[in-house]
Amino acid sequence: MMRIEIINTGTELLLGSTRNTHGTWMGQELVKLGLRVQRQTTVPDGVAIEDALAESTKRSDVVLVTGGLGPTSDDITREAAAKVLGVELMEDEAALRALTEFFEKRKKPMVDANLKQAQNLVGADVLPNHNGTAPGIYAPPRLGGEPNCAVFLLPGPPRELYPLFNEEVVPRLKALGGVEVIDSVQELKFVGVGESEFQDRLDAKLAEVDGLEVGYCARLGELDLRLIGSDEAIAGGRKLAEEMFGDFMVCDDGASLEEVVARSLAEAGKTLATAESCTGGMIANRITDVSGASAVFTHGFVTYSNASKVGLIGVSEESLEKFGAVSEEVAGEMAAGALRVSGADVAVSVTGIAGPTGGTEDKPVGTVCLGIATKDGVQTYRELHPRSRQDFKLQVSQRALDLVRRAL
Amino acid sequence: MMRIEIINTGTELLLGSTRNTHGTWMGQELVKLGLRVQRQTTVPDGVAIEDALAESTKRSDVVLVTGGLGPTSDDITREAAAKVLGVELMEDEAALRALTEFFEKRKKPMVDANLKQAQNLVGADVLPNHNGTAPGIYAPPRLGGEPNCAVFLLPGPPRELYPLFNEEVVPRLKALGGVEVIDSVQELKFVGVGESEFQDRLDAKLAEVDGLEVGYCARLGELDLRLIGSDEAIAGGRKLAEEMFGDFMVCDDGASLEEVVARSLAEAGKTLATAESCTGGMIANRITDVSGASAVFTHGFVTYSNASKVGLIGVSEESLEKFGAVSEEVAGEMAAGALRVSGADVAVSVTGIAGPTGGTEDKPVGTVCLGIATKDGVQTYRELHPRSRQDFKLQVSQRALDLVRRAL
Repeated sequence: MMRIEIINTGTELLLGSTRNTHGTWMGQELVKLGLRVQRQTTVPDGVAIEDALAESTKRSDVVLVTGGLGPTSDDITREAAAKVLGVELMEDEAALRALTEFFEKRKKPMVDANLKQAQNLVGADVLPNHNGTAPGIYAPPRLGGEPNCAVFLLPGPPRELYPLFNEEVVPRLKALGGVEVIDSVQELKFVGVGESEFQDRLDAKLAEVDGLEVGYCARLGELDLRLIGSDEAIAGGRKLAEEMFGDFMVCDDGASLEEVVARSLAEAGKTLATAESCTGGMIANRITDVSGASAVFTHGFVTYSNASKVGLIGVSEESLEKFGAVSEEVAGEMAAGALRVSGADVAVSVTGIAGPTGGTEDKPVGTVCLGIATKDGVQTYRELHPRSRQDFKLQVSQRALDLVRRAL
Repeated sequence: MMRIEIINTGTELLLGSTRNTHGTWMGQELVKLGLRVQRQTTVPDGVAIEDALAESTKRSDVVLVTGGLGPTSDDITREAAAKVLGVELMEDEAALRALTEFFEKRKKPMVDANLKQAQNLVGADVLPNHNGTAPGIYAPPRLGGEPNCAVFLLPGPPRELYPLFNEEVVPRLKALGGVEVIDSVQELKFVGVGESEFQDRLDAKLAEVDGLEVGYCARLGELDLRLIGSDEAIAGGRKLAEEMFGDFMVCDDGASLEEVVARSLAEAGKTLATAESCTGGMIANRITDVSGASAVFTHGFVTYSNASKVGLIGVSEESLEKFGAVSEEVAGEMAAGALRVSGADVAVSVTGIAGPTGGTEDKPVGTVCLGIATKDGVQTYRELHPRSRQDFKLQVSQRALDLVRRAL
């Protein structure tokens, strides 16, 4: 496996004023080639790049550096690479011509500071940048002897980096011969089962699958199981996971739970209505994040008060009084009422105590009742999710969407 | 200056399937303390953490590690830290008790795999995690001799990391003595005015205020202006900002726009209803993120179809036919209808084209009409926010909440 590292330069990334989207984007692009990043490092603008590059080139076969190719004084990636690789910088005629044309085309004056952007490492390729002033640079392995590592210097702005990466970097990575087609990645998403249950019941079995690498990524209310290896190894791992937890498996293509639900509704030709109290619109909000939701989602009721439960979806005042707003009875009436008023095929309801206040001994903060209604009838559930207010909302919306998924 | 590094563990970060939000978030939090991150490294789950930690602890005064504290086999941050720092791991009684209570409270079984989460480094502090099973660990400098570096091991999930960072890490960083004395920090939040307008009209003036350091943090639909300096310098900067953009200023205490709106509603003793089409429940969802929202928010209508606009809040079929669902006329009828049906004091409505499909020449993707209704009447607006689907929803919810704020 080709060892690849990414170095992102930019003080703003470390201050947190800009998000590092490059690392994420390049990681995704490399996975498509069957390649993986083994380390990503962010350093500030300035001299820190030199140390980081020296370390990375010793450790890896390919180093991808972004940023620090601009005209200002803190843009010193070229100079740092020259030092680390032990070669000179010299003006590149084609790069200078491209730079001059860039400014002429935009009728802007080229200043002296831009001249250094036409400098190239001796023995390296200039990678044309059609969207900015900084061309990229590719220094092949063994340039100047050790380190035996290929180095790409790439512009920082995404609209310059992304096309340049696809046009100039990808073909060179392929030419380097390390593109392994046999290694695949598959991510299986599970809802309603925790990481420790996987660990307890599946981990040891997965470890026995030859050539399979396993990873977990747990989020609130869901778990991604990542399988890496040959197609055969992945199929073996997947079979084990499905045998044990198939009922909880939501998708194998990285879709969100709301995408899976919207997709299933569309495939079944059915529509959904929601009746939300404690989640306050989060379920509707998640479903409508999916493009095309209007075909499957028509009515959302956010009945945050007793009056709106009664007035909008016909919950009975008797039930509210006798069982309380947070009860399976009321959840059931909410779901049935939402189904009736909307004319949808499926309706899901939630009513609970998000906290931090409002809990009682009988119904502590985190108590929730859910209802799911179809033409076949209504089912209700009572659960406890003692979490922060926003985590509670997210967890309950997760449960509600999963109930819809299972009802289809 | 205290040298600080961050190490984020997680194969999903390098594969690009998850964005690294921790680095960004911690960078921002450290800036507030007058501290700067000098390097950030991402490594996959597994053994790579050991090398990275060994390098970082040699280079820095403080290393913050996130992730790898879970129960599964690829969670080995504790073990790696023990090796690098040259100390043993042993079961921590308090951590084990907290872990047991965590599962008891949720009525879930604790499995053997969880036991390793109660392991602590000898001589280190256990940092309680109130939102998950993995406590953090703080190994003070000189633990086991070299390296002379403080190491924090922190849980990966943001909902666990963020509160733990603020409660446990910040006080220890302050105690380490490297925190620069900052007279004061004030963050002013503005909605409806962009960063370039600030830079154009205010930046030069702020630069003239003696001893004032200025920072901006732009988010979608809002801008935080950070003023750092003496109380006098901050007052001077604030005066300039208010003279120019006072009408757009939402708060000076870091509250979210929805918190400001909920607060203002409560102070005015008024209630709110929402009628949402294109935002699909996001406005209601944001308002109900605020604890105590039930006192000011009663009815939310997610009228995603024409039928629900007519059936639930009395939009006329004539208007839908004549002007279309995305029109100021329909937005006005939605707001008026929501006010009438709910009996609330203020109602806000949105109807628009979130895209990516559904646009026309006359009403391109990004078109939105908003309405705000009170007893004094209805006002409507038509705007264009050509953005991705989710950014569009967020931007429109921002505008709607700001209309409510201005109506109070």
